[in-house]
Amino acid sequence: MKPDDLKPPTCWTLARRAERMNASVIREILKVTERPGLISFAGGLPSPKTFPVDAFAQACAEVLHEDGSGALQYAASEGYGPLREAVANMLPWDVDPAQVLITTGSQQGLDLVAKVLVDSGSRVLVETPTYLGALQAFAPMEPEVVGVAADAEGLDVADLAAKTKGARFVYVLPNFQNPTGRTTSEPRRQALVQTARELGLPIVEDNPYGDLWFDAPPPAPLTARNPQGSIYLGSFSKVLAPGLRLGYVIAPAAITSKLLQAKQAADLHSPSFNQRLVAKVLRDGFLDRHVPTIRALYHAQRDTMLAAMEREMQGMGVNWNVPEGGMFLWARLPRGMDSAALLSKAVEKNVAFVPGAAFYASEPDPRTLRLSFVTASAEQIDIGMKALAAAVRENLPSQAC
Amino acid sequence: MKPDDLKPPTCWTLARRAERMNASVIREILKVTERPGLISFAGGLPSPKTFPVDAFAQACAEVLHEDGSGALQYAASEGYGPLREAVANMLPWDVDPAQVLITTGSQQGLDLVAKVLVDSGSRVLVETPTYLGALQAFAPMEPEVVGVAADAEGLDVADLAAKTKGARFVYVLPNFQNPTGRTTSEPRRQALVQTARELGLPIVEDNPYGDLWFDAPPPAPLTARNPQGSIYLGSFSKVLAPGLRLGYVIAPAAITSKLLQAKQAADLHSPSFNQRLVAKVLRDGFLDRHVPTIRALYHAQRDTMLAAMEREMQGMGVNWNVPEGGMFLWARLPRGMDSAALLSKAVEKNVAFVPGAAFYASEPDPRTLRLSFVTASAEQIDIGMKALAAAVRENLPSQAC
Repeated sequence: MKPDDLKPPTCWTLARRAERMNASVIREILKVTERPGLISFAGGLPSPKTFPVDAFAQACAEVLHEDGSGALQYAASEGYGPLREAVANMLPWDVDPAQVLITTGSQQGLDLVAKVLVDSGSRVLVETPTYLGALQAFAPMEPEVVGVAADAEGLDVADLAAKTKGARFVYVLPNFQNPTGRTTSEPRRQALVQTARELGLPIVEDNPYGDLWFDAPPPAPLTARNPQGSIYLGSFSKVLAPGLRLGYVIAPAAITSKLLQAKQAADLHSPSFNQRLVAKVLRDGFLDRHVPTIRALYHAQRDTMLAAMEREMQGMGVNWNVPEGGMFLWARLPRGMDSAALLSKAVEKNVAFVPGAAFYASEPDPRTLRLSFVTASAEQIDIGMKALAAAVRENLPSQAC
Repeated sequence: MKPDDLKPPTCWTLARRAERMNASVIREILKVTERPGLISFAGGLPSPKTFPVDAFAQACAEVLHEDGSGALQYAASEGYGPLREAVANMLPWDVDPAQVLITTGSQQGLDLVAKVLVDSGSRVLVETPTYLGALQAFAPMEPEVVGVAADAEGLDVADLAAKTKGARFVYVLPNFQNPTGRTTSEPRRQALVQTARELGLPIVEDNPYGDLWFDAPPPAPLTARNPQGSIYLGSFSKVLAPGLRLGYVIAPAAITSKLLQAKQAADLHSPSFNQRLVAKVLRDGFLDRHVPTIRALYHAQRDTMLAAMEREMQGMGVNWNVPEGGMFLWARLPRGMDSAALLSKAVEKNVAFVPGAAFYASEPDPRTLRLSFVTASAEQIDIGMKALAAAVRENLPSQAC
């Protein structure tokens, strides 16, 4: 394959996998949403109000004063010992700090998992729909990605079982999923783990949003029920700040050792300075005080968005769910509408969202859309939802009028 | 492939590429060198004396005060605009900031280059010997790595031409190379670029050490002579601090767009906080004042090591080179000796180095060793070299006595 925009003769030959790499749809939409005055329900950006800037400023001063040379030096690929211990202690099952690998965001965890477990043509099972970033992280290893049916309670376990043969793993995001906001129910978790065990199917569990529950914590992680058959990915991006790029992976020992080798080859280690900052900020139960403030804010924002939708979307045949945590709400337009076509009309009215099609491994539902309720303010949510409803109303297909 | 240390029955199947991943020899040696009292010439760690801790402390306070929310938020995969501009301005040829991709250390640049350019079985040419981390970064993409002969002036261009057919690129580290410390001469650079152009062979140029020259700057980069046929990798690890994990890649536009897509899939972006810190520290020509202090320190350390070697290694048939910059010196034991066997004897005498064999794509020279002159102090260099010479003396093969 030769890149299109280099004039021949060119000396470059791209790898076959480069054909599978594409600019993210979300990335392109986010460029549009940088327009001043545009209200965005598109991005997956945590509210900057939740970033503990003062705590980080104090941690910077302390870390550099106490051992600046150590914080700025090369460090072990596994991660900073005290941070690995803090992660092991945070998790609700018995985790040995030696199993904790600190990653450059949980996105890197997905890259490492794919490198270690996916050969060209390997089958990988994902939810329908699923996290776009996971599809992107897996793509360079050239898997056959197969979508498994899902409903409001999570994966359809019978469909999962039917598609398991030859699969290297199933990738699931059980809590307040990106993009749908849905949570896998307790009975579905039990059925999923039982089926995975019986069929010898490894589970890759991604849990960036699990701490952001509103009324009650979600059921226990899949990995807690099946630690030898699961890899667990976590992140500090939603409970502290994404700009530090710190996440973690927990895996069985033999898998951890391979993930570690892949990690070393990928970037030697995640920034030692950032790891020490987070370890410093986490001490004295900081998250126990901080995370409830994020939950309260996002809960209120969700309620504002639900109220605005009920007020503005009446009688047009738009459906949506009620997420019990996280950052996203999933909506579906009436028959005959296409959310990608709606987006340009919405942007004309100064509001943006992400069309759902990008989140499907195959056969996208063009009527779906993802709405973030955490980045825009309450006032913006009211104004933006009025504009979005107007765009829907003006573009309703004739048979739906 | 099933991992050895998981008891069957196991549900896990590793990717084929996982067989090529191994714990780094250097990593294993570095564990030994953590022993208190051991003098290490092994690590490639910059001297912590060179880290501008105060400048970073001030930058942390300013960055978090001026726009803490922005510094802690998700950011563009390309990198922070002002940092990309600073990199473009630092380089000695005409670089558009749009060509600059900020990476999580230059190690990540190697991972992205391999993902975008290397298919399973693709030929990749490297120097003999070459940077171990590059071999590790390329390995997951399953290349056929072919070593090209080299002498004190750099790559043997005739051998390069003979091995070029089907190669995706040649990877070169022209300045104060890791592991040998050698610099590719001006005539050899001209011949290398001419041959690469004639044969349509892309060059991947890695330059982490180029600023660390002692008496005179090295000749112009290969990429400056052949920008459409080259990818250039740079790093802030040796001129500021490695613990921030920031490097950069410069490539032709069509390659940059693919590297960017691979970057986004790998870790979304490098830490926005760290990028703003470095952009802040770099302002007002900081490197123009700071880097000369690193050069002076490393120059003095090199001289100390050379003097110690001349004093201690007399008459044993050990050879070594005189690097004109960087961090490493390359030595060769007399015939019949093996540096890996010598290492355990040296460690008994409280001194460590890296056996050279790990740096060869094939047919290692077991007599070679890499010595870092920057991590140990001058006093430690004197003591350590005396101990190393004693270890050599006690283990000279009988025919050499």
